[in-house]
Order: sequence, then structure tokens, then C-alpha cells
Amino acid sequence: MTRDMVSADPVGPPRWNGWGDPDRAVTLPGAVRVLLPVLLGRIRRPAPAATLAEVRLAPSRLTPADLDALRSVVGAEAVDTTDEARIRHAGGRSTMDLLRRRHPEQAAPDAVLRPADHDQVAACLRSAAQRGVAVVPYGGGTSVVGGLDPERRAHRAVVSLDLRRLSGLIALDEVSGEAVFGAGTAGPEAEALLAAHGLELGHYPQSFRYATLGGFAATRSSGQNSAGYGRFETMVTGLRVAAPGGDLDLGRAPGSAAGPDLLRLFLGSEGALGVITEVRVRVHSRPSERIVEAWRFPNFTAGVDALRRVAQQGTGATVIRLSDESETAVSLAQMGRIGRALSRGASAVTVFEGADAAGRRERTAAVLRVAGGTSAGEHDADDWLRSRFDGPYLRDALLDAGVFCETLETAANWSRLHALRGAVDQTLRRGFADAGARPYIMCHISHIYPTGASLYFTVLAGGMPADALTAWLRIKAAVNDAIIAANGTITHHHAIGRDHAPWLADEIGETGVRILAAVKRELDPNGILNPGALVAAVSQKGS
Amino acid sequence: MTRDMVSADPVGPPRWNGWGDPDRAVTLPGAVRVLLPVLLGRIRRPAPAATLAEVRLAPSRLTPADLDALRSVVGAEAVDTTDEARIRHAGGRSTMDLLRRRHPEQAAPDAVLRPADHDQVAACLRSAAQRGVAVVPYGGGTSVVGGLDPERRAHRAVVSLDLRRLSGLIALDEVSGEAVFGAGTAGPEAEALLAAHGLELGHYPQSFRYATLGGFAATRSSGQNSAGYGRFETMVTGLRVAAPGGDLDLGRAPGSAAGPDLLRLFLGSEGALGVITEVRVRVHSRPSERIVEAWRFPNFTAGVDALRRVAQQGTGATVIRLSDESETAVSLAQMGRIGRALSRGASAVTVFEGADAAGRRERTAAVLRVAGGTSAGEHDADDWLRSRFDGPYLRDALLDAGVFCETLETAANWSRLHALRGAVDQTLRRGFADAGARPYIMCHISHIYPTGASLYFTVLAGGMPADALTAWLRIKAAVNDAIIAANGTITHHHAIGRDHAPWLADEIGETGVRILAAVKRELDPNGILNPGALVAAVSQKGS
Repeated sequence: MTRDMVSADPVGPPRWNGWGDPDRAVTLPGAVRVLLPVLLGRIRRPAPAATLAEVRLAPSRLTPADLDALRSVVGAEAVDTTDEARIRHAGGRSTMDLLRRRHPEQAAPDAVLRPADHDQVAACLRSAAQRGVAVVPYGGGTSVVGGLDPERRAHRAVVSLDLRRLSGLIALDEVSGEAVFGAGTAGPEAEALLAAHGLELGHYPQSFRYATLGGFAATRSSGQNSAGYGRFETMVTGLRVAAPGGDLDLGRAPGSAAGPDLLRLFLGSEGALGVITEVRVRVHSRPSERIVEAWRFPNFTAGVDALRRVAQQGTGATVIRLSDESETAVSLAQMGRIGRALSRGASAVTVFEGADAAGRRERTAAVLRVAGGTSAGEHDADDWLRSRFDGPYLRDALLDAGVFCETLETAANWSRLHALRGAVDQTLRRGFADAGARPYIMCHISHIYPTGASLYFTVLAGGMPADALTAWLRIKAAVNDAIIAANGTITHHHAIGRDHAPWLADEIGETGVRILAAVKRELDPNGILNPGALVAAVSQKGS
Repeated sequence: MTRDMVSADPVGPPRWNGWGDPDRAVTLPGAVRVLLPVLLGRIRRPAPAATLAEVRLAPSRLTPADLDALRSVVGAEAVDTTDEARIRHAGGRSTMDLLRRRHPEQAAPDAVLRPADHDQVAACLRSAAQRGVAVVPYGGGTSVVGGLDPERRAHRAVVSLDLRRLSGLIALDEVSGEAVFGAGTAGPEAEALLAAHGLELGHYPQSFRYATLGGFAATRSSGQNSAGYGRFETMVTGLRVAAPGGDLDLGRAPGSAAGPDLLRLFLGSEGALGVITEVRVRVHSRPSERIVEAWRFPNFTAGVDALRRVAQQGTGATVIRLSDESETAVSLAQMGRIGRALSRGASAVTVFEGADAAGRRERTAAVLRVAGGTSAGEHDADDWLRSRFDGPYLRDALLDAGVFCETLETAANWSRLHALRGAVDQTLRRGFADAGARPYIMCHISHIYPTGASLYFTVLAGGMPADALTAWLRIKAAVNDAIIAANGTITHHHAIGRDHAPWLADEIGETGVRILAAVKRELDPNGILNPGALVAAVSQKGS
């Protein structure tokens, strides 16, 4: 069994109006093209999307004096006001973002700044605060919750602070298993730098190829290997942060009890409390062994029970994920095995890496069998492994074909998981029906904990109204309300951004929001940091 | 191998001027009495300690109007102004606390309040804030960092808020493995309530018999089984908090990415940001199997290397701890094997509980052997297990015999651990020499992480000056500075309290302290909550 060297897997720059490297764009598999009208009814080809040259932006609001001030901080070449740079930093990669980019009229930041190091970041923030210019920190550009929208709110202008020059390995402590990276280091670069020392970070979210370590930290990202190596926030042992109100260097030692762990205030701070400039992470020896195995369960309920036992008994899976019946059927269709699809129950994938992989596989398999699972061998699991970063390319192809496609996610205790899934599913169905559209709803669990698990929904729909964006905003607002009512979290790993900000008070209470606002006032007294994200000054559900 | 049912292990109320149940008080073992003059030189019997009846308190500063207001909130029987109640709530159980209690003149809170539930706690805080009365939340009374000192600072009076009526199991979700307890539930009661359902929390700090779940949460406690079940903060999945500025109910779902995890702001909040009233924890099936084994290493350095490998390879020890040569020698002396003591290198204890205990023991043993360890069988490990909550009783006996005895602790990365230990050791030796005393310094590691470990020092000294308290404050201040200089944390599991508050800015930076102060202003605008603890308004190192 050999490892695919994900870290040595080069990709080109992302599409300005789609997910990633245009060279990796996919066309819809034939079986899927056949299946779509069956599942979704009538599919309308969309109006052609605007080309980059057709996009019209408002002129930059920055004055010559602003530009001079910013150039004096980062250098003239690091202040970019070209339309292309502004468009490429105009937002993230949610379906709403991509639909907006099909139109010629677009909002964009007034400039893109590319600071070289922590001190330049800190100086940019001071300068922007003085001049009343809002700052949106930018890493890999893969936010799917409106975390990068170029909002200026009450400020004169807004700039995108592109952190990708803050990249590379700053320090490595091999004895302690810790590495310090510039916050702008992208996933593949971090892994390549560690691989040279026989080490691995092991954080592989779907955004891995583009997203940065600073972005992982700022959004409490969770990767596909979370069962084995933990969520990104559990990997972080230190952060350096710049803020207009003062800098921070957090994470003195493992296992401290020196008051509240302030690291945790910046994990999930989403660029609204400060700008993360360095990330210290726990790393481990690169595993030499990998065992993969697919499983089948009679139904999703049996599979959920199996995953719960694995999580609570701690049998040591590196990856474990379970697709519901709908997702299982479509996955099999994609693999060209459509005939067998709709009667195959729920499929799961397990991966074991590192020490005692065979023993952990054996102990996990015993639990899965007791819960009604049967091994389906390596093949389907290998398929998943090979294509695990490619889902968003499929979305591009679906949107181009006129199929609406979006994802959303939540998490809850095991005892509440089925009710939560039912509530989301029903609310989606009702919402699409009200919009006159026909959805196909898939769900999987990809992150498990002793006390609960995530639920990740992928929705396809045919027959959406011409203004699909407005229709979806209404549906999503209803789903968010349903999640809260069913005791789920408003987001498991996509973060709050601007899209979820109106529901933050439901999640942490009004007092919780006031705490975040108090911290923001202390660190960002002028409110220039990512205004509207996380702690929104004014926000209205579903608006 | 049968489990000792720690949870069914009843203890009486603690001594007012010593550690715990007077019925469990120990006398010094004969071998130790022989050894002490050899190690410490001349030992002076101290002046007799004041009896409870001899203690003189200032009259309560609460006015009749204050008392009426507080009685209307919690009931007349729950407002206690007797001298005995006030003395029993006058502080924690550090050696400084115990030395202070030998004198007839003592500081004490002006009353003890015993609220029955969350709403009464919240009402107490509102009433106290209105009346300008400071509030020190009180759980098991086992703070060793001045977390319970009855300080009123600028306020008219100070009350102790005894939370032990908020006890018991409030809710149990067996499917999700979560239990909600009143914050005043003591360790043994929580374990007994869970044991009735075949469940365990598994948090066994030395303070286990008295300390409460709210206290564990408020101080980021770490128990002896931390290698297996994690620090207490990792067990907490939810908290209910009352504060003058608003209440909180945190911890919506596992694995949320909904902004910063505000739970982590109250884990370690030490009663200064709010009062924890309910604690939701992850629980696990009560393990049916336990394997214990002692180990010997040629020296501490070899043992540290072994523990590092165990932590980084994750071989699954439930407990692993390593004593340095000095502690090993004294431990053996206590066991009556003094003859063999001083040439035995460094001893370690391992415990494995739960699923696959034998396999985990085997994989751990393989790592320990490679690092130079040899198994020393079960006997010494059983001894440790039997006496693991009894260390503080020995301190009582030593103090009565005129031997100074105190502990302190820190943690650092593996690569910095030896330098940190050397710095603390040297600073202690210099400090005791300057005081004309002769110390015996022992060190152990009892908590390991992939990136580092704790260091726990026990210091005995003979020939301390009559004012041992002042001498120790000077030594401890120098040690704290040395810890900071050597990149250690100012506390691994004892917390900040008042004793470490002057070093908090060294730990989290001035900006970090300002963040905590901003949160405190929002939640406790009048500053009535545990004034001087954690975020001290004015504090001077070594004062």
C-alpha cells in the first residue's frame, strides 16, 4: 500500500469564478448526466456567465494619499489596484459567490495588499485604522460562508489583505514535534516542507490544495483525517496575531492552566479580532503504512450506530465516514455502477495510518461488524481517497449545466443526530418545493467525536427560479432556524462568516456575542477588521 | 486485578487548618523520620498552632441591610456569619495558607452564602453588585494558589459563595456519553453517581476527594489519569455560568466552528469572570480491567526520553509518571526500603484501563524498554495507586514536625524540559541557601503531551527562618521569574489565583491581560467577582 503524496500534488491558481485549477475541471460523468433528469426533473441551461473582461467594478475608493500611505508600509509593488486582482479577491467560493460572479456587475475590494511579514501586517492595520479603511484578511480564498466579502460598512474603503507572502517554515522543533509556519502557507506547501523532515501535519480538508494554515486556524477547520489527528484547532499549539489594539504571541507551553486559553479566542476569530501571522502546530512522523477499507451497512441508522461505537470506544480510525442511502447511490452512479446503486444501503470508508494500523483496523472492523456492517474491500475506499479533493470541481460542472448545487453542515450529540438530520431534510424539501424546484438531498458523516458527530449535506436541485441566489438564501435561512431548533450547531467546520452571523446569538447567546464584541472593541477599536463577519454590528436573519 | 472504588471512598470534612479528613491524618513513617535530619539538617519544632477557638476575626463588615438583602435571595439559613463558617472559608490549602492558619489573627470573609441553585447564584451576584460586596466563589476549598483569599479590594465587604448545594446529577445522556452535574458536586460524589450507570468521568487530581467539578473547570485541573482521559478541560462539553453582566449556557454541539469556543474562556476563569453553576462532561464506560506496572530507568533523562516517545507514539497509557532520582529515593524510603534507595535511578508508574489494556501495555512497554527502562513489577505501582491522594496528609505531618514542605509545578516543550528543571532547581537551592535553610528537592512528570510535559516539584526544607512564609514568598517569586525565563508556563494545573497573578502578563502578554480585563468589564462591571484573582487590578511580583 503506497501513500499518495498529496503534498507533492501541484495545482495551478484557482479559477476566478469557480473552484480551483482550470486544468482539473471535470465534465459530468455520463452516468450522472443520465441520472440528473431522473432525480431533478427539468434542468434549464443557465444564461452564459460573464467573462473576466466583461466584469465591471466601481472605481477604487482609495485616495492617492491612502495609496501613498499603504505603499510606504508594504512597498509599491505590494499594493495592487488592478481590476483582475480586485476581482480575484472579491469573495470566497460558496455557490452564492459563484452565482454572483456570473454577472458582469460585481463588488470588489478597493485594493489588494500583499504584506511580506508580521511587522508589515501590523503596520498595514495601524495605517488602515488611522485612515478609516476596512481590512479583509485573505488566505486561500476558499471561504464558503461569506468570510471574504469586501464589506466596508461605515468605513471609507475596504482592502483585501492577501497573506500568502507570509509563507514557509519559520521554525522546526523535531524533539517536541512542533513546527511554526507563516500563516499564508498553503496546505500542500506545509506538507511538502514537513515531508522533507519525515514529518506530517495531517490536515486535509476539501480546501487543502488552496487554503492556508492561517485560514484553517481562523475558521476552526476540520480535515478528513480528523478522527486520527484531530480538528485543526487541536493541532495548533501557538499563534502570533497582529491587531490594531496590540499584538499577541500565544501558546507558551502544553498543558498550561494559566487562566483561560486565549489561543482559543483566535481559533475561530475569522479575521474579525486580529490577523493571524504565524501558526505553530503539532506534527507527527509521516506514517509509512496506510490501510483503506470500504464498508456497507443495511441503512444509515445502522451505520450511525457503528460510528458512535467506534468514536466512544476509541478504536483508532484515522478516517471514518458514512454516506446515507442517497449519497451512496449517487457515488456508485459516478463510479459507473448505477445499476446496483439504489439498493445498496449506506456505504462507509475507513482509513488507518501509522503505528499499529493493522491492529486498529482489526479492532474497528470488529465494532463495525457487530453493528451490522460488512466489509466491501479496498476498491471504493481507494476511489474516495483519489477523488477526495475533487467534489467542488463537480459543482462547477453542475452549475454550468444548470443544476443548482450547494453544501451545508452542522453537528450534534449522537442522541440528537437523527432528529437533526430529519429537520434539515424536511426544511430543505419544503423550501425547494416552495421555490418550484426539485431537490436531491444527500448527507454524510465525516467527523466523529465521543459525544456526537457532524452532518454534511449536499443538495442538488433542478428547476430553480432564474434568481436562484435569492431562492437559496430563503431556503438556507429556514434551514439555519431548523438547525438551531433541533439543537445542532450552526456550523461544524465552515465557520460563521457573514452568512451565519445572524445565527451566532442563537449559538452562544446574547451574552456570548457581547463578550466577542467587547474583545473586538479592545483589539479593533475602529472596527476595521473584516466588518460584518463573525460579530456583525447589524444583521438580519435571511437578509 | 480489581479496581479500587475511589468513588465509594468516604471522607469526612477537611481540617480547618490542614488538608483533609482528620481521621486520615498520618504520622511520619519511621524511615522518613530517620532520613529527614540526614537530608535537611537541623529541624526546629514550630510554635504550637492556634486552635479554632483561639482564632480572632474582625467583625463582619456586612450591615443589617446587606444581610437582609442576601437572606431574601438565599433564605436566612443559607447566610452564615458564624466565626467557624467564616474561618473554614478563609482560603485554600497552600502551605502559605496553612502557615497563616497557625496564627490566632486571621482574615476571613464577612459571611458565607450557600445558594441552592443557578437562579440563586445569579440573584446573589446581582445583589452583591448593587451593594458593593465582593464575592469569592468556593467549591472544595483546595486551591493552592490563593484563589480563595477573602479579598475585598475597593469593596465594602466580601462574602464566600459556597457552591456545594449545587450538587448532583442534573441530566444523563447515555447514548452520547454526556452528564450534567451541579458545579458543587465533589469528585467522589460525581463518580458514585456515574458508577450507578456503569460510567466514569475519570478525573483524579490529588484534590479529588474534596474538589468540585466547578472548581476543576474554573482552574483547568489535570488529573492523574490525564494521559488516558485528558485534562479536565477536554472532558467539559458544556458550562452554565452566572455573571452580574449576564448568564451563559455554552457548548451547543461537539466539533462546532461557530466562532471562538467561548467555553474555553470560562475554563480557567477562576471565579473572576463568572460563577460556573453547571458542568456538562463527557463520560465513558467504567473500565473493567486495570493493569499496573512500575518501571526503573538508569536516570531521569532516560526516563524523560521514554515518556516523550510514549506521548508522541500514542501507545495508550492511562497513567504514566516518572520520578527523578531524589523523589525515587524518598519514595522507596517511605516504603521502608531505605537501604536500597539512593542508587535506584528514576522510577516510573504505568496504568492501563479499558479496551485493549493488555495490547496498549505491551506497546508501551516496548517503547519503555527501547529507552532503557526495565519493568519493576506491580508492587510499587500498586503502592502509588493506594496512596495517590495522600501526599497532602504527609505535608500536614511534616509541617507539624517543623519541616517546611511545598509544591510547585510548570510545563514546557520536551526540548526545553531539562533546562527548565535545571533553572527551577538552581533557583530553589539559591533561595533556600539565602534564607539559611537546607532543602531537599524532588521532581516528577505526571502529565505528558505530544509536544511536552509537566514538571512537579516537591520541596522539603529544614532550618527555615521563623517567618518561613516571607522567606518562601521571596523564593517562589524568584522561581516564577526563572520559569518564565526558561520558557515554562507559570502553572500547569494549580492555576493563577492571586499567587501567580503578577506573572500572568509574562505568560499571555500585556495584550492578553487587556483582553481578559475587557471580558471582565463586560461580565462584571463592578469588579465584585474574586477581586485580585486571575486579572489583578494592581499586583506586584513577590509582594
